[in-house]
Amino acid sequence: MTIDLGTYSAFLFDFDGSLWTGDAFYDGALEFLDQLSEHGRDIVIVSNTSTATGAELEALLAEGGVDAGLSALTVVDIVGTALVEEVGRCAVRVCGTDALRRACEAAGHTVVPLHDRRRADALLVGLDPTFSYRDLEVAARRIADGERFFVTNDDGFHPGPAGAPVPETGAIASAIRRVVNVKPRVIGKPDARIFSAALTLVGARAAAAIMIGDNLTTDIDGAAALGITTAWISHGTALPHPIAHRPDFVSPTIRGLLDIVDAAPIGPIESPIAARAPSSRAAGS
Amino acid sequence: MTIDLGTYSAFLFDFDGSLWTGDAFYDGALEFLDQLSEHGRDIVIVSNTSTATGAELEALLAEGGVDAGLSALTVVDIVGTALVEEVGRCAVRVCGTDALRRACEAAGHTVVPLHDRRRADALLVGLDPTFSYRDLEVAARRIADGERFFVTNDDGFHPGPAGAPVPETGAIASAIRRVVNVKPRVIGKPDARIFSAALTLVGARAAAAIMIGDNLTTDIDGAAALGITTAWISHGTALPHPIAHRPDFVSPTIRGLLDIVDAAPIGPIESPIAARAPSSRAAGS
Repeated sequence: MTIDLGTYSAFLFDFDGSLWTGDAFYDGALEFLDQLSEHGRDIVIVSNTSTATGAELEALLAEGGVDAGLSALTVVDIVGTALVEEVGRCAVRVCGTDALRRACEAAGHTVVPLHDRRRADALLVGLDPTFSYRDLEVAARRIADGERFFVTNDDGFHPGPAGAPVPETGAIASAIRRVVNVKPRVIGKPDARIFSAALTLVGARAAAAIMIGDNLTTDIDGAAALGITTAWISHGTALPHPIAHRPDFVSPTIRGLLDIVDAAPIGPIESPIAARAPSSRAAGS
Repeated sequence: MTIDLGTYSAFLFDFDGSLWTGDAFYDGALEFLDQLSEHGRDIVIVSNTSTATGAELEALLAEGGVDAGLSALTVVDIVGTALVEEVGRCAVRVCGTDALRRACEAAGHTVVPLHDRRRADALLVGLDPTFSYRDLEVAARRIADGERFFVTNDDGFHPGPAGAPVPETGAIASAIRRVVNVKPRVIGKPDARIFSAALTLVGARAAAAIMIGDNLTTDIDGAAALGITTAWISHGTALPHPIAHRPDFVSPTIRGLLDIVDAAPIGPIESPIAARAPSSRAAGS
């Protein structure tokens, strides 16, 4: 079974744990991107990181010499419009980095600092490396008092240097939820919005896109719900039984997936590749 | 249905959320304690707090004018011996207050600071008001590296002033668990050890004891597992269906439980009340 380049115009990739180990690219990752680029395929990194925008991630990759003409889209790029959809332009208490606060302000929301006494409509939690017990206490009380609870993502960790787990937004959210017993609404993967935004960014239909990632919930279930083809990097883990959505392709490594990309019989791409509209990222959809 | 004083020699009480609202005693709580004291019943507060010993809690109550001749036992009093039972005398990395560290040292363990590079056998998490994201990261990595994961209790919160939820050990544990997917071993209620220690403290058999608390898991299931009679303060919450253990008595308030204590037909107490042995608290069993 091969990944036929004739079928897919858009290749969506998860970043942490799929392309990036935490301190280096996985073996084969850069070759994979280069090969797609050579064949004119669109590449979008679709990341649940809440500490950087897609443009910031692109800049970091360019600094590191990665130049495959790729785009990157993170939950920061879509969080502002997602909140507009859910609660309208609102007062949002933000627990997270400056990137998250700026994204909310750019979408027209009023950002309320976590410890501010003003009432807010929503409380948004992203990864916050300065998070403390006192922040936990305040966040829980604000939600108990009726502020709506949003999280950028529900990932428990992402891989850091030497593969050590770096606590993610989902761990912080889990602590808050354990205090107030309120389930947060998740903005990032597996929610459909970030995948839809990625398809729009490169003008691809779901049927002409493939999502490659290591997380069966966020990457595989999330993309499959939109009808996007899925490829799972298992890192040697067996598929669970039962499984919500069986991925279309499975490989223990990204090198293994690269090896089954069939570039030979390239036919016409089913979906025309639309011209990139850089401003569409900011719009988020 | 009445709580017959002739049946019970020992009255075990949960503290936070049962006797204490967070900044005051519940209506009827002190009268309840006084009535039991007048009738010579033993009273033991059995608390999952990990920030104070039973003796410290007793001293605080005495300072506040509560003088019902009661005893208090917290998870701090039993954690040292519990760890000996589980792993022997060991090197234990402690995330929590000084009370917890002292308790571990008193039981012969070597206490390793959370951020110390030395390897430990176990990592023990209690309530830590200085807990930070950096602590979360270190704790998760140590558990990922094989240190055994213990928590003093798995309560998500306890009530604070004006009833606002104060994040408890279970919330911190939940964040760690979300990063490493390791379930911690719980030392406090509903584990049997603290109930056994409370019975030993006053020389009562389980059949002659009643546990009064507001938490169906920690207080009611925990005590029932030892054959202790249980009384649930519901605060107006309905009993769930199905339920692990149906409490023997239910009241929305502690005042309501006091009102059904039948002091009139006091017969002989089934179990002789043993003399208090203050040193038995430190031994923990």
